[in-house]
Amino acid sequence: MSRTFEPDLESYRRAAVIGGGVIGVSWAGLFLARGIDVVINDPRPDIEDLVRAGLAEITPALAALGLPTENLTAGLTFEADLATAVADVDIVQENGPERLELKRRIWETVEAAAPAHALLATSTSSIPATAIAEAMRAPERLIVGHPFNPPHLVPLVEIVPGARTAPATVEQATAFYTALGKKPQVLRKEVPGFVANRLQAALFRECVHLVAEGVVTERQLDDVMTSSIGMRWAVAGPFRTFHLGGGPDGLPHFIDHLGRAMETGLWPLLGNPTFDDATVALLTEQAREAFGDASVEQLAAERDRAQIALMRALGETPDTERARA
Amino acid sequence: MSRTFEPDLESYRRAAVIGGGVIGVSWAGLFLARGIDVVINDPRPDIEDLVRAGLAEITPALAALGLPTENLTAGLTFEADLATAVADVDIVQENGPERLELKRRIWETVEAAAPAHALLATSTSSIPATAIAEAMRAPERLIVGHPFNPPHLVPLVEIVPGARTAPATVEQATAFYTALGKKPQVLRKEVPGFVANRLQAALFRECVHLVAEGVVTERQLDDVMTSSIGMRWAVAGPFRTFHLGGGPDGLPHFIDHLGRAMETGLWPLLGNPTFDDATVALLTEQAREAFGDASVEQLAAERDRAQIALMRALGETPDTERARA
Repeated sequence: MSRTFEPDLESYRRAAVIGGGVIGVSWAGLFLARGIDVVINDPRPDIEDLVRAGLAEITPALAALGLPTENLTAGLTFEADLATAVADVDIVQENGPERLELKRRIWETVEAAAPAHALLATSTSSIPATAIAEAMRAPERLIVGHPFNPPHLVPLVEIVPGARTAPATVEQATAFYTALGKKPQVLRKEVPGFVANRLQAALFRECVHLVAEGVVTERQLDDVMTSSIGMRWAVAGPFRTFHLGGGPDGLPHFIDHLGRAMETGLWPLLGNPTFDDATVALLTEQAREAFGDASVEQLAAERDRAQIALMRALGETPDTERARA
Repeated sequence: MSRTFEPDLESYRRAAVIGGGVIGVSWAGLFLARGIDVVINDPRPDIEDLVRAGLAEITPALAALGLPTENLTAGLTFEADLATAVADVDIVQENGPERLELKRRIWETVEAAAPAHALLATSTSSIPATAIAEAMRAPERLIVGHPFNPPHLVPLVEIVPGARTAPATVEQATAFYTALGKKPQVLRKEVPGFVANRLQAALFRECVHLVAEGVVTERQLDDVMTSSIGMRWAVAGPFRTFHLGGGPDGLPHFIDHLGRAMETGLWPLLGNPTFDDATVALLTEQAREAFGDASVEQLAAERDRAQIALMRALGETPDTERARA
């Protein structure tokens, strides 16, 4: 492949979304709002109802992001046969169950049936492209495009090439997700959990420890986060934050002083909790106290409204990006 | 003490700010903007110039938060003698160097000279009130009021009672910081690093690991954070985030599935980096690439402007809180 990939959606007319769960619906909504026709492939008999209901649910968020949502489903179709579904598409985004054998079977079928120019991406959060592509004749075509849930809202897409993924595929994926309004990051190594989920795991381990030790409640810990580090990290990542915490000499000065104090004084003390019965019972009880009787759906809608307000304030919604361009 | 503490500033006319560094200046600016006279106690001969310059620097942020800043320094005085400085104040906020012996000497002097009704708080991030108060005749009066830097901007104040701190002191401190427009959290145990710095340490350890391993650069890691987890945690803490990630059954379902997968699949793999020469050299080089020639001051001002835009969008600035009241 010698063509270069421009960050526009001109050549993306039609997408196959494999798996119509929460992630698939969210990708489908974003693709449709961006003018890309979508064919959903999913074996469930009630898939059409599920996807249409899911799209109706996220439409207000798409609109609030400044995306066009009129006749959103005009370009939506369903095709239960996988080879037929991908036969005439420009991008395949696969969101099947996280089972290696199943993904291998899916991708064997896809690569045989999809057009040669199509971008082939899996949303997997836990299975490396290298492992899935072992069953493929053209492993250079497969790439991980792992969104942070939900993809229509959160900008990050982790692009994780496998050992045999072609550089051109990396370039193609980066251009596509950028044109879609996302913020892709290309990882330089395939590591379990990629980056964002490892960071979440590292932080959550200490959260569970502090609650299990009775230092704070879940509600307090959440409030600590939103009223300090969380609002910091929304505008400046941890390295920038500590660069600014190092005085005029920045990060090197931070490391020499506070960083070394952290290494010797805090890292060895961080907790190693387990989800044993007592911990799970405590976390469950405190979740009930913190989140009460409100439905998860209702709380999620509130969270997403706040999220969109934040993104608008920071100029990170698709409409403000277009306005700046 | 049997009086109750209302969350208003009526009874706070005058504050002593001990230590006029970055934290002290920030507290002083906030107190002044809230109509509290401030006396600064600091042994440096050039302290008056330093504090006035510092206040001028943070005044735009105070104004952007909706606080009155006209004649901000009308109520500002300086007093080099500690006993004299605290003789007629309603609150003492101490921001001295993080050295136990020094803090003990300061607080012995303060408790002998300050009025009996004054709230006595230390901004320490690392020394427990229990240890400082060992030298005090009335250890029940001392409490940790640890701000997240800078205090005039970031809402969190960690209130950490020592072993002998009186419940009334906890109540008094909570009422005071709340009235000041902060979001105090009372910790139930004195643990090293309190809560926010432990969470930062846990996350940063994995950040250093991922950069040292060459998975992403510092710049990429910061972008991952601001474009995914950071913007999430600004509006919903980690427990709420995972409660919403658990489907209709919330956190218990999350723990049973993704939580246990995290416990077995990711926690054991998280990194244990050290600040050895090679790591420090890499971090320093990448900081130069990421932050270039821009001064820390300039980058911090940019960050704080974004921070304030975010807080306004989420309705978390003092003016919007007043507007809602």
